[in-house]
Amino acid sequence: MAPAQRDPHVVVLGGGSWGTTVSSICARRGPTLQWVRSQDTADDINDNHRNSRYLGDEVELAHSLRATTDFTEAAESADVIVMGVPSHGFRGVLTELAKELRPWVPVVSLVKGLEQGTNMRMSEIVDEVLPGHPAGILAGPNIAREVADGYAAAAVLAMPDQHLAANLGSLFRTKRFRTYTTDDVVGVEMAGALKNVYAIAVGMGYALGIGENTRALVMARAVNEMSKLGEAMGGKRETFAGLAGLGDLIVTCTSQRSRNRHVGEELGSGKTIEEIITAMNQVAEGVKAASVIMEFAEKYGLNMPIAREVDGVINHGSTVEDAYRGLAAEKPGHEVHGSGF
Amino acid sequence: MAPAQRDPHVVVLGGGSWGTTVSSICARRGPTLQWVRSQDTADDINDNHRNSRYLGDEVELAHSLRATTDFTEAAESADVIVMGVPSHGFRGVLTELAKELRPWVPVVSLVKGLEQGTNMRMSEIVDEVLPGHPAGILAGPNIAREVADGYAAAAVLAMPDQHLAANLGSLFRTKRFRTYTTDDVVGVEMAGALKNVYAIAVGMGYALGIGENTRALVMARAVNEMSKLGEAMGGKRETFAGLAGLGDLIVTCTSQRSRNRHVGEELGSGKTIEEIITAMNQVAEGVKAASVIMEFAEKYGLNMPIAREVDGVINHGSTVEDAYRGLAAEKPGHEVHGSGF
Repeated sequence: MAPAQRDPHVVVLGGGSWGTTVSSICARRGPTLQWVRSQDTADDINDNHRNSRYLGDEVELAHSLRATTDFTEAAESADVIVMGVPSHGFRGVLTELAKELRPWVPVVSLVKGLEQGTNMRMSEIVDEVLPGHPAGILAGPNIAREVADGYAAAAVLAMPDQHLAANLGSLFRTKRFRTYTTDDVVGVEMAGALKNVYAIAVGMGYALGIGENTRALVMARAVNEMSKLGEAMGGKRETFAGLAGLGDLIVTCTSQRSRNRHVGEELGSGKTIEEIITAMNQVAEGVKAASVIMEFAEKYGLNMPIAREVDGVINHGSTVEDAYRGLAAEKPGHEVHGSGF
Repeated sequence: MAPAQRDPHVVVLGGGSWGTTVSSICARRGPTLQWVRSQDTADDINDNHRNSRYLGDEVELAHSLRATTDFTEAAESADVIVMGVPSHGFRGVLTELAKELRPWVPVVSLVKGLEQGTNMRMSEIVDEVLPGHPAGILAGPNIAREVADGYAAAAVLAMPDQHLAANLGSLFRTKRFRTYTTDDVVGVEMAGALKNVYAIAVGMGYALGIGENTRALVMARAVNEMSKLGEAMGGKRETFAGLAGLGDLIVTCTSQRSRNRHVGEELGSGKTIEEIITAMNQVAEGVKAASVIMEFAEKYGLNMPIAREVDGVINHGSTVEDAYRGLAAEKPGHEVHGSGF
């Protein structure tokens, strides 16, 4: 039997609601340090076991969780890096990290989007900026506030090496948070990047007063459409039927808290995308992702009708009624191998 | 170019809400005759273009739809048979049909359950009673009343022969009803038979006050669990991620009208299954299917934890709390290849 080993020291970079929730999960399992930019947030975490700014006053974090604003301290002490910074800051933080991080340290991303301009997945950026560091992603139907409140939830941890995935998986598990593993990094990252566009499509449908059958139809076809692109990019079809695909899609399409669904509903009520974005004062990732999907669709020679219609409404002046008419006009073919809606 | 051919004459057997809705869909495409047992229902359909008993007074059926109570007339005129009778009457009606039906006539089932006692799928019964007749199934997220009301919806038509499926598919299409095709008869039939058990599991969760993450978790794991059994029986994994699998599951788990979800909620409130069944005065297919899944699980050597816990509550005196504790106790493994919850 192998002797007992030192617990890996987890460092989470980022002070948002999900980064903090994951930090608290990890801290229940072993030594965990969260790096945040704001001294107030660090103090709140260390002194009050709260991140009031992002999770409100009621969520109590693991008492063993420590926070710091000292990037060097965080980077040097890390046996595992968890990236909780937004996609637009991801490359910058990694570049800083490259100077200080010890070799081989795995990097787990919590980010569901692609890099603007390059359309790169976060793990691709890790491969580019930190070659030699195994890169993965943790994703699933995880509304941060609900997980923080202690409702049962699950995610999937994707890493190319399944031994490492199984090992790291245990760091992200509590009695109420289930972390599954997979080797399909591409699938999980693409599911996270794509699903918001489909949530907008369903949101539009709500505005049109679609029935429950119709909603289920759009969601089932959305999983098929995402799978098609994901497979073309090297992912696996079954990932899109799992937690990061349909699981996250269900939450994003049905939750009242979903920003992307909200965008769809507002588009359906006749507002322009500019009006909606201004009023939300928040990012709805699906708005940008719609045109990105169309770029991918062209690159891989795929017909992506749901994304095409959402892109039409957001970027090309179509109405929500046009969008649903456009889908209805497509003839249904083979459920899996057919090319259309 | 092939010359124009005579339109196939569709005969729908059964006068319930879904059989009537499908009859009306087919009648918009071509000659369709619906066989019903009750003269009142036949008169209502022929004279008022209504099936008030099952669809209320507001739903207007296709005026071209004709109904009869004359079984021989129906059987003899059929180029395509659509079976809308419940699973317990399925074999009996087929046996009558065998005496009168012309050779080669395809038989499309609308039935989502298995035969009690034998656990046979409906297409297996067709193969047994009417050998030589191609057998298929039409299934999907189709709340009859919503389809009848004209909300957009979709289904998948599964037939072993894809040319025939493509041909027949066109009979079940309108502007608002999309019929896709597949060759995976086993998958579509098993999805229909299994999903009700998972809707009960989600219903139980509602009673426990699970969050949206948890619900998505249970639904994603349900799709995985159904896929596992479906594959073992010869079906295809992707079918369970499609309309008949996750599509139907979404509707069954979220609709207020779902009987199976209702059973789960009532179990969660502490009622016994006998009390619930008595009060409902209606069949909830998942109640019987739970023990059937456990028979299949044993036969194929599979661990089916969600079904096992539902079966425990329905048939073995467990509480709903026990059930969710039982699931939480299982360690999450590989998302697709892991054997547990």
